[in-house]
Amino acid sequence: MNNQILNNFGLIIQRERKKLKISQEELAFRAGLHRTYIGMIERGEKNITLINIHKLANALQIPLSKLFEEKI
Amino acid sequence: MNNQILNNFGLIIQRERKKLKISQEELAFRAGLHRTYIGMIERGEKNITLINIHKLANALQIPLSKLFEEKI
Repeated sequence: MNNQILNNFGLIIQRERKKLKISQEELAFRAGLHRTYIGMIERGEKNITLINIHKLANALQIPLSKLFEEKI
Repeated sequence: MNNQILNNFGLIIQRERKKLKISQEELAFRAGLHRTYIGMIERGEKNITLINIHKLANALQIPLSKLFEEKI
C-alpha cells in the first residue's frame, strides 16, 4: 500500500514536471532540492516530507491541492 | 516559512479531528500512529511524511486534496 502511495505521487510529480518541459535537474534547482532526490521521488523511492512537497508544488507552480487531486 | 507550513497543517488536522469530535488518542488509533505524534503534528512540531499524511487523511475520512484545500 505505502509503495503505491509513493509511486502515484512520483508519477504526478513527473507528469507536472514534463508539462513544464523541464529536466529533473531544473526542477531540483527551482525547488532547492538535490537532483538525485527528484529522481528518487519520481520513482517512488522516497517517503517525502510535507516541507519538500511544498517546495515541489511551488517549483511546479501548482497549489498543493492540485498535487493531490487524484486519489493517491 | 517552514514552521508556518507545519503550523497550518497542524491546525487543519486539529480542525478536522474536532469536526469528528474525537480525541488525539482516537485519531492516533484510527491512523495507526502514536498519540504523542498526533499532538506534535497538531502543534506543528513534526515535518510529517506523505505516508503519514495519507494515514491521517484516511483516519479523518477526507481526501488528501481536502487537507490541502487552503493555501498552507
